[in-house]
Amino acid sequence: MPEPSPGSRPAPRPTLEAVAERAGVSRATVSRVVNGGAGVRRPLAERVRRAVEDLGYVPNHAARSLVTRRTGAVGVIIAEPEVRIFSDPFFSQQIRGISRELTAQDTQLVLLLVDGPGDYDRIGRYLAGGHVDGALAFSLHTDDPIPALVRRAALPTVFGGRPGWTAGADGQAVPYVDADNRGGARAAVRYLCGLGRRRIAHIGGPPDQTSATDRLDGYRDVLPDAEPELVAEGAFTEESGARAMERLLLRCPDLDAVFAANDLMASGALGVLKARGRSVPDDVALVGFDDIDPVARTTDPPLTTVRQDVEGQGRLMARLLLRGLDRQREGGPAPEPVITPTTLVRRASA
Amino acid sequence: MPEPSPGSRPAPRPTLEAVAERAGVSRATVSRVVNGGAGVRRPLAERVRRAVEDLGYVPNHAARSLVTRRTGAVGVIIAEPEVRIFSDPFFSQQIRGISRELTAQDTQLVLLLVDGPGDYDRIGRYLAGGHVDGALAFSLHTDDPIPALVRRAALPTVFGGRPGWTAGADGQAVPYVDADNRGGARAAVRYLCGLGRRRIAHIGGPPDQTSATDRLDGYRDVLPDAEPELVAEGAFTEESGARAMERLLLRCPDLDAVFAANDLMASGALGVLKARGRSVPDDVALVGFDDIDPVARTTDPPLTTVRQDVEGQGRLMARLLLRGLDRQREGGPAPEPVITPTTLVRRASA
Repeated sequence: MPEPSPGSRPAPRPTLEAVAERAGVSRATVSRVVNGGAGVRRPLAERVRRAVEDLGYVPNHAARSLVTRRTGAVGVIIAEPEVRIFSDPFFSQQIRGISRELTAQDTQLVLLLVDGPGDYDRIGRYLAGGHVDGALAFSLHTDDPIPALVRRAALPTVFGGRPGWTAGADGQAVPYVDADNRGGARAAVRYLCGLGRRRIAHIGGPPDQTSATDRLDGYRDVLPDAEPELVAEGAFTEESGARAMERLLLRCPDLDAVFAANDLMASGALGVLKARGRSVPDDVALVGFDDIDPVARTTDPPLTTVRQDVEGQGRLMARLLLRGLDRQREGGPAPEPVITPTTLVRRASA
Repeated sequence: MPEPSPGSRPAPRPTLEAVAERAGVSRATVSRVVNGGAGVRRPLAERVRRAVEDLGYVPNHAARSLVTRRTGAVGVIIAEPEVRIFSDPFFSQQIRGISRELTAQDTQLVLLLVDGPGDYDRIGRYLAGGHVDGALAFSLHTDDPIPALVRRAALPTVFGGRPGWTAGADGQAVPYVDADNRGGARAAVRYLCGLGRRRIAHIGGPPDQTSATDRLDGYRDVLPDAEPELVAEGAFTEESGARAMERLLLRCPDLDAVFAANDLMASGALGVLKARGRSVPDDVALVGFDDIDPVARTTDPPLTTVRQDVEGQGRLMARLLLRGLDRQREGGPAPEPVITPTTLVRRASA
């Protein structure tokens, strides 16, 4: 489209109708071609494209995004290597929830993969480059560079899981969505006590993640006098749960219950207990966390666990961010954190 | 940074050194703050940020991307719903290969999730919005709108898997990376013939994907006279393989071998064969395709299969695209397609 010469009035913006008239086709055909061209015969599509070029037509959505400076896209950053993202169903469920909500709001999900710590510089550049309107970040660790990156990019962000800090640089609350990790852990341990178990061990997650420390706190709320040997640290993976279980059996051979901080670690622990001849739940009662699909239902025996709605949390994160973007344009405050409830699901393992 | 008034000479661009001097810190500290701020104490980082603002410093990478008009990012589009992407290890392996290569080239992987056909309009807008330098697209179906989208966005693109068309709108070859699907299928069926099997069935993939039709063609190359009842159509999922196996057993109860067009379908077929009392490989020899990890190794018995290097193909796609971007700037032609070899891996199922 030729630029108007200085001082001249800009020509009126050409309409979809004008393109349709020039190409000799219907409005619907123009719209289809402009939006990707699926289902339109090639010669027809060519005619429409020529008319678009001749008239300098700019589709409405592009015009809209020029006005609002919105890309119509949201970046999703998971602070874990891509191998874990694809092997732990927790992440796919959270992404599913985010994807459903963003799709319902006609917003593009842009997943930014992190392969290692060296990638953060590049991700920071992308976030600062105006390619997304906001960000969703989850599975953060205490010293994660992501909060600094999104702050520097001045990008509205909602976190999945309570961040290790409580207020932004400007003193504002940091918006996040999290499950009631501490309350859920308390319910699990109280349930084991109610079954008459007296030596209840805990397999915890990585201590640099609040979901792990909150669940450990819930365990300690109920058992403030539990010996330190009853607590072993894992890394939220099946293999780390198995290794932690082996250490616990060596240190406390008389344990009669285990509360694992997630289902994958519970599943790893279950394999070790069976291999060592301990029957579950008769000798050792076992409770997990997450009620993750399909793991919790398909172990043998299936897992008693603390359910959190992972997909729902993803949906909430996306909703909170989009609402926050709208409010921000009106000068409103950042959204408040949301804590979702947990429920104990009883199956055969305890 | 104040804009220079018309006619005045623009001020020299402030350097990293100038920022370091003004803030009273080292060059390394400035660089760390500019690139995300990890590992720099807050008061120091604040001083650097003030100096950056005072001087109107533009970091080098931003300046570089202004000159080259490169975002340093590549979009990856998988033409499958997000549920399949996270459940079929084929996709995670391809993404792993892409991610490794892009990371090695300091390029950001941007995964654009597709939830349904209604999402393509939005993806087209994102691709046309200048947020990525090129695209990698795989698992395309015959009538996929993705080729039209990337063409409209004038975005250099490499396809994973041979597209259903052979030349771009301009008559140029379409760059893609694919395995030798037809040759691999021929090797599998010849191997079954060599074992003395006479009634060899085929479970094919969706007929709108070239990987499926090429493997079916390989089967027919070796068995041009096979009855149509010996061929059942699946959808590359485990469940569809099981259903296809059930149909085959009804139609051809005397079959003594099955070549499935991927390992997931072979695994589904294996479950049905065992449930119907057919021993594998004694009654029915079974061969898959892909040698996908961990499926092919962990079925009981493990699968004889046609190996393709899925991760390597992802790496090649990324390499081809980045090389193509460099060449394109120099006015060179688009890269040529690459066909990677396949090998038969013998395990207990045949």
